[in-house]
Amino acid sequence: MEYWNDGVVGTQFQYSITPSLQSGFMRIIEHISEMQDWSEGERCQGRRIAMVPTMGFLHEGHLSLVREGKKRGDRLVVSIFVNPKQFGPREDFASYPRDFDRDRKLLELEGTDVLFCPTNEEMYPAGNQTYVEVENLSAPLCGGSRPGHFRGVATVVAKLFNIARPHVAVFGCKDYQQLQIIRRMVKDLNLGVEIVGHPIVREADGLAMSSRNAYLSAAEREAALCLSRALRQAETLLKEGETNSSVILERVGREIAREPLVRLEYAHLTDTENLLDLEQVRDSALLALAARIGKTRLIDNIILRR
Amino acid sequence: MEYWNDGVVGTQFQYSITPSLQSGFMRIIEHISEMQDWSEGERCQGRRIAMVPTMGFLHEGHLSLVREGKKRGDRLVVSIFVNPKQFGPREDFASYPRDFDRDRKLLELEGTDVLFCPTNEEMYPAGNQTYVEVENLSAPLCGGSRPGHFRGVATVVAKLFNIARPHVAVFGCKDYQQLQIIRRMVKDLNLGVEIVGHPIVREADGLAMSSRNAYLSAAEREAALCLSRALRQAETLLKEGETNSSVILERVGREIAREPLVRLEYAHLTDTENLLDLEQVRDSALLALAARIGKTRLIDNIILRR
Repeated sequence: MEYWNDGVVGTQFQYSITPSLQSGFMRIIEHISEMQDWSEGERCQGRRIAMVPTMGFLHEGHLSLVREGKKRGDRLVVSIFVNPKQFGPREDFASYPRDFDRDRKLLELEGTDVLFCPTNEEMYPAGNQTYVEVENLSAPLCGGSRPGHFRGVATVVAKLFNIARPHVAVFGCKDYQQLQIIRRMVKDLNLGVEIVGHPIVREADGLAMSSRNAYLSAAEREAALCLSRALRQAETLLKEGETNSSVILERVGREIAREPLVRLEYAHLTDTENLLDLEQVRDSALLALAARIGKTRLIDNIILRR
Repeated sequence: MEYWNDGVVGTQFQYSITPSLQSGFMRIIEHISEMQDWSEGERCQGRRIAMVPTMGFLHEGHLSLVREGKKRGDRLVVSIFVNPKQFGPREDFASYPRDFDRDRKLLELEGTDVLFCPTNEEMYPAGNQTYVEVENLSAPLCGGSRPGHFRGVATVVAKLFNIARPHVAVFGCKDYQQLQIIRRMVKDLNLGVEIVGHPIVREADGLAMSSRNAYLSAAEREAALCLSRALRQAETLLKEGETNSSVILERVGREIAREPLVRLEYAHLTDTENLLDLEQVRDSALLALAARIGKTRLIDNIILRR
C-alpha cells in the first residue's frame, strides 16, 4: 500500500489486552480544575505537554496520534469526550460507539500520562452559551451537510486547550477540514498551541479507519471501499497529466456510483489551506469526499500533489 | 453624592503630567509572543497577574480599575487596543478618541508593570475569521442596536486573556452587559480568569465617566445629566415602594423626554445575571439605559436593590 502518498497503513489491534498489562501509571482526571492545576504545574517545571483530543472508541488511527504525541512532548494528555455540541439533532450522538475500559487500557499501554475524561455536565454546565466559530473554513465541504458541527468542534477544542494547556496537539488528517479549522482558530485566538496533522491510517484494503466503521454491515464495509478506490483513481489521473477538476471529479463520481449501497454526499477538489474549490490542480489540492452507506456517514480524502 | 448605591464619585485628573514624572519602570509590549513569554515567566515564578483591558483615552473610571488591579495582583498588565471588531460600520471607530502619550504617562504613574498595546495587524492578521459568541446574553439591551458588538468584545477579550494570561481581570460596571458576557465566556471557555466588576465612576454632577463624553458639546454635556437623574429617580421610586417595572420605566422615560437634545434608545429593567426583562423588581434589578445626544451614544445603569 505504498501507493498512498499521504497515508500510512495500519493493522488491527496487535494487543491482547489483559488486566495484568495495566501499568497503573496513567492518571485519570475527570475534573477541569484538577486538569488545569496539573498542566500549570507541569508547564512551570519546564515540561512540554502534548495532547491528543479524541471521542474514544480508539482504533489504530487514534493510536498513531498518541504515539506521535508521545514523541512531541515530555508529558502526554489524551482526552476522551464524546462532544454533544458537534452532533446535529438527527445525528448519532446517542449511538456513537463507546468502550471506556478498552480505551483506558490501550492508552495506558501507549504510555499516556493523563487521561482526561470529563462528563457532559462538567464540560457544559447549565447556562453555557458560548461558541467559537471559524467562519469561512466552516462553510464548505462538511459544513453544508452538518450545520453547527464545526462550531461544536471549535468550541470543545478551545475548551480542551484552555483546560489542558498543551504546547502541542495532534489531530488526524482524515478530518482534514477540522484540522484546518483548528489551525486557524489557534492562530486567531492566540491559543499558543502547535497543531500537528497526522496522516490517515487505513485498513490493509484501503478503508480509512474511523470509529464509525463499526456501524457497517459486511456488505456495506465492502461497498465502502469505493471511496478510497475513487481517491486512488483520481491520483492516477493526475499523475497521467489530467489537471481539470471537472474531469477528475467526474471520474470520482462514476467510481462511487458503481456501488448501489453508497450515496455520494459531496466530492470536492479544493486548495489545501482555505478549502476553496479549484478549477485546475496546480501544485497540490485536497480531494475530499463524504458519502452515506446505509445509515453510516463516512468521509475520506487525499492530498494530491503534482 | 453618597446617593449612588453602586457607584463612586471621581474627580477630574489630579495629576499634572510632566516628563520628569515618567518613572521608566513600565514595560511597553507591542508583540503578542513577547507578552505571552512575559506572562508565562511571571506565572511560573508564582506571581499573580492582574489585567485591565482598555481602549485607551483613560479617565478616572479607567484609573479606578487600574488601582483595583494593582491591589489584586503581584503584577499589573493594562492593555490599550481600540478594537475595530466591536465597532459597527457606521460607528465611531475612526473618530474614537486616542491619546497614547498621555495614557502611557498616567499608567506609569499608577505603577503599571506592562502596557500591552498591539497594532491592528498584530491582533487581526490577514485571514483571521474566528469569533467568540456568548449567545443569550448578547441579544438584549445594546445587542439590539449594535449587532456584532458583543461578538467583537468577546473575541478580543478571549484573545487578550490568551495573550496576557491573567489570574484576575477588572472591568467597569458601566458596561454591565459586557461584564456579564465576559463572566459567562470565562466560565464557558474555561479561561480560568477571575472577573472583577468595579463600580461606575461619575463626575461630581452624576455623569458616568466615558471616553465618549469628549464628543459632547457644552449643551449636550448638560442635557446628558438627565440619564443619571432618571436612574436616581427610579431608585427613589423603588425606595418608596414602587416595584412595578412599567411604572418605573415610564418615569424614566418621562424624565429623559424632558431633554429635547436626548433621544432614549432603550430603558430596561432586568435581572442582574441573565439580563432578562422583569415585570416586578424583587431583590435586585439592573436598570440600564442607552441614549443618543447629538451624534454621541451614551449608556448608563444602576443596580437597584430593595
